[in-house]
Parts: sequence; structure tokens; C-alpha cells
Amino acid sequence: MKAMIINSFGDSSVFNQVELPTPEVISGSVLIKVAATSVNPVDYKIRNGTHPNLAPAFPAILHGDVAGTIIAVGEGVDGFKVGDEVYGCAGGLPSIQGALADFMLADARLIAPKPKTLSFEHAAALPLVTLTAWEGLFEKVRELKGRKVLIHAATGGVGHIAIQLAKWAGAEVYATASTSEKQEIAKKLGAKDTINYKQESVADYVERITNGQGFDVVFDTIGGENIERSFEAAAHYGEVISIQSGGKESYALGAMHGKSLSLHFVFMLLPMLRNADRQRHGEILRKVAGLVDAGQLKPLVDSKHFTFAEVGAAHDYLESGKATGKVVLRK
Amino acid sequence: MKAMIINSFGDSSVFNQVELPTPEVISGSVLIKVAATSVNPVDYKIRNGTHPNLAPAFPAILHGDVAGTIIAVGEGVDGFKVGDEVYGCAGGLPSIQGALADFMLADARLIAPKPKTLSFEHAAALPLVTLTAWEGLFEKVRELKGRKVLIHAATGGVGHIAIQLAKWAGAEVYATASTSEKQEIAKKLGAKDTINYKQESVADYVERITNGQGFDVVFDTIGGENIERSFEAAAHYGEVISIQSGGKESYALGAMHGKSLSLHFVFMLLPMLRNADRQRHGEILRKVAGLVDAGQLKPLVDSKHFTFAEVGAAHDYLESGKATGKVVLRK
Repeated sequence: MKAMIINSFGDSSVFNQVELPTPEVISGSVLIKVAATSVNPVDYKIRNGTHPNLAPAFPAILHGDVAGTIIAVGEGVDGFKVGDEVYGCAGGLPSIQGALADFMLADARLIAPKPKTLSFEHAAALPLVTLTAWEGLFEKVRELKGRKVLIHAATGGVGHIAIQLAKWAGAEVYATASTSEKQEIAKKLGAKDTINYKQESVADYVERITNGQGFDVVFDTIGGENIERSFEAAAHYGEVISIQSGGKESYALGAMHGKSLSLHFVFMLLPMLRNADRQRHGEILRKVAGLVDAGQLKPLVDSKHFTFAEVGAAHDYLESGKATGKVVLRK
Repeated sequence: MKAMIINSFGDSSVFNQVELPTPEVISGSVLIKVAATSVNPVDYKIRNGTHPNLAPAFPAILHGDVAGTIIAVGEGVDGFKVGDEVYGCAGGLPSIQGALADFMLADARLIAPKPKTLSFEHAAALPLVTLTAWEGLFEKVRELKGRKVLIHAATGGVGHIAIQLAKWAGAEVYATASTSEKQEIAKKLGAKDTINYKQESVADYVERITNGQGFDVVFDTIGGENIERSFEAAAHYGEVISIQSGGKESYALGAMHGKSLSLHFVFMLLPMLRNADRQRHGEILRKVAGLVDAGQLKPLVDSKHFTFAEVGAAHDYLESGKATGKVVLRK
């Protein structure tokens, strides 16, 4: 099969198209004919060597997110058959090769039937970011219904999904963005009001939107100083979700203590990395497909599309910060 | 009335006994004839000037914890009458004078009928630490039943209560202590097993007690490096409760992220400081009195007792770290 691989860490030019043996299906797994994948920040951070401990062995096939069609089913796999259209986040990590190839061997517990109403490309945009938002909002936070929830980076991968999931769960959703165009998108996704964080201070928007009381839940998707800004934006007894600890060496926690806050970190790769609790991700993706097909959730996909051979350019584009929503790649 | 006051921040010699006007009862409050109080670390930190923003105006009457008898009931107060024996944590902060006096004016929402089976001294040992442990375990943590819970500083004020409350809630409780005597006390309070943290590393006791999996919930009562040790002791997806952010300037959060942990800070003084949600504390103390009278919870009180005139010595004794459980003062 053809695969886009890396043989060393480096800039986006390290990708090479090579011929590799097609994986054989094994017990508990399915072989997927890959139709589409998407880029997540962790993918270019693995590629550039920021997280060598998260990289598959060389020659490494990167990317977790996949959508495609099952062409072989391993022993002991229930609920899937050849020809099923599926999606999931299922590789691109140590011991499990990724989606940037003609075929991907995937643990059947990690995948689910693709939403019927989505193309492969749009389905491939969802898994990693939706699982991340889901874990934060539904497995960590104590209550969403009726609460004021602030989502940072409204049109980012996790942000645009978190807006929709929080809204679906009955929260009153607010979102930050850097331009008026992105603020409009956030409103269409379900935000009651939006904040241009380049033009309005935390104190000002906390005053304007919450009468100075703060938000019950703040979803930081950026890390670094934005975690401390999230403490500032949170109400007493509030909850902050973060998915990025790496932006600063260390964090002052006095403001957290002073407001009796909770901080929840989400590290969505754990079931893959630990080979533990993987069926939970398949189950969530089944529910997500139901929400998508019911019109409650849709991926925001950047208008610029890429082929697998253009993965380097796709990485550069996402890393540039110019993309709106997810950057997807089709075969 | 006689009161032990401070007119400046300083060491334990700053206390002076003076004559002050007895407070007049006001709407929403009760006047308590004080029988006993207890020392909490925040009291000596207010006295020594560590937290000037938490101090009442000079001449300042410190101490939040109180037990005594109601001698006057303000307008609009339901559920209390003259002669009722009550307990609570109700002052020693800006705008609300404390318990180190013959009489204390207390917001009726903050207090509750004293447990019938306890003396005033033992009742006065409970409020601040029990409210702290309760908020951490029951208002922050997602689930306790059947989960492995590690309590740091088993015979400390918050620690000895947290052991009993977690056990009552169905958790499997473990506790750290510095001596074999304190380990024995922890077992009597309900700990299934104990750890001498001076003799066993985090990695070793995580291996011994949890087969290397970590604890589902860790209650840090110490702060500083013990917060990072608590991250180390926690299981993936675990929860750490802390009541002390001040031990270090800043904290590395990578280990928290890597395990998808939650960190909950508890700042029990907030209802008093903000004059918000105070009735919640009275309600918790009613439930606590029920638990005490049902034999499910008891205060651990150091054998050394002090009078109000000896409050300086009581502060020094608690601060020395030599006390076991709470240090109480009787009139």
C-alpha cells in the first residue's frame, strides 16, 4: 500500500510517500480502507519532535483521525462487517500506526459507524476533537444544564465542538474568537454571545456578560496564560477544563484556591496509549454519530482541502493559525 | 465582656485580654455565650500577618470555630431560641468578629444545633475542618463509593474528619501519617491501611496498595510539594483535593495533564467572606451533627487543653506540629 511516512522528526518536508506492506487484520481489529483523515495539533507536534514519546516507530505513519470502509474483520470483533463505513481516532501513536496510508489497522473498540449524513472527509474531522470536548464536558464537569459556559477559541477544533455539545446539554454558551467573522460562526454554532478577546479584557467581559460573577465553566483550549485567564473568568466554585499544560513551565494556583475552583485536564490519547478503557471511545463516537444525524452537531471544516500527498502543507496550514475549524485530507 | 484581642499582627504574644462592649443582637443573627473554640491554621496565619486581608479590624477578635449557648435571637431568625446549644464557624474575619470572647454575634445561617453527644469543647473542634472536608469530598469529587481514597495527614484537623466522611460514603480509605502512633489512630478512624510517608516513597506505596494503579481520590491537606506528590499518587482520571495553594509559588501541571486528572481547591471561608450562600454551611453542620450523634463521626481532640487566656500558647502548640487532631480552648 501507499503511505505517507516520516523517518525522522522535522518540519513539514519530512513526509515521504513510500510503498509498505498492507497490514494483516488481527484479533480484535478491523482493516479500514482509508478515505479521509484530519490534522490535529498533536499530529504536527509529534512530527516536529515536540512529543517523541507519542510517536510510532520509524517509518512512522501519523494521524489518529480516520474515516473509511472496513475491508476485513479480525477474530472476536462483534458489531462490524466488511463494507461498514466507520470513523474513529485509532492510531498514529507508539505501537499503533496512523491513518496516512491506503489502509489502517484499527482496534475495533475505538471506532464506530460513521454518521450517515456526513461525507468521509467531514466524519474524519470529528473523532479526536469531539472525544476531547466530550470527556471534558460530560465526564469531568459536575453540571452543565442552565450554567454559563465560556468556550475559548470558538472556531478551533475542540472549541467549535464544545460550543455545540454544551448547548445541546442545556448550557448558556459564550465563546471567544479573534475576528468578527469567527464570532459570527460561533453564534451560528449556538453561542448566545461572543467575545473578541483581542478587544475586550477578561474583567470587562466578565462584567458585561455575567455582572462580574464569572462563568460557571470555562473551557480553555489554548493552555499557557489562557489557563490563568480562565481562572480569572471563572465564578466562585467554578470549573475550568484544559487540554494544554505545556504553554508555561508552571502555574500560580492562588486564584484557583481563592475561588474554590476545580481544574480538569483532559488527555484524550490515554485509552490508545495505555490500551485501557478503549471501548469507551467507541461508545462515545456512536452517541456522537446519533447527535450528528439528528442535526445537533456538525463539524466545522476549513474550505481548503488537501490530499494525503499534501499532508505537509496541511500541517503548515493548521499550524499557521489561519484555518477555521478542522483541516481535512482526502485520498 | 472580656475578649482576647490583637491590636497588631505578630507572634503569639500579641494577644491581650481587654474589656469590650457586649455586641447587640441584630437582624438575622444570634448572640452566643461562648463556651469553647478551637484553633485552625488560618487563625495563626491571620494573627501573624500572613493573611492581612482575612483579618477583622483592630481590635480584632480572632477564631471562627465556636460552641456555646444562644442568649439572644435577632429579628427574622427561624429555628433558634434562647438556650439552644449551637456550634459553627462564624467569624474571626473582616466585618465579623470571632469567638475569643465571652459573647459572639453570629449569622444564624452559619450555625446549627450542637451534636447532643458532644461536649462544647469537642463540638468546637468540628466546624471549620468538617465543612472543609465535606466541601471537598461531597461537593467537588464526582464519586466516592467503592473508590480508593488517600487522605494526607491522617491526624490533622481536616485529615481525621476526611477519613471518617470518606469511609461513611463507602470509599476504601488510606491515610498517611508520620508516626506509628498516628497510623494506629488513622486505622481506628476507619483507614483500611496507612502509610508512614517518612519511610515509604509515593511510588512504593502506590505499588503496594494499588498495584501501581494509583488512588482514585487524593486529599492533600498540606499544600506545596505535597500537591505534586498527590498528582503522583493519583490514578489516571483521578481527582486531587487541596486546601493549600500557598506552599509553592507555582506548580508544574504536566503530570496532571498526562493522567487526565482533576484538581479541586476548597476555600471554606468563602461564604463568610462573600456573605453568600451561608445557609449551606448551617445545613451541612446539621447533617454533621446527625452523623456525630449516630456514631459515624467524632472529633479527634488533642489531650492538651487551653483556656481562652492561653490562646497564644494554643497557637504555638498547633503551629509546632506536635498536636494530634484539634487544639481546643475552653472558657
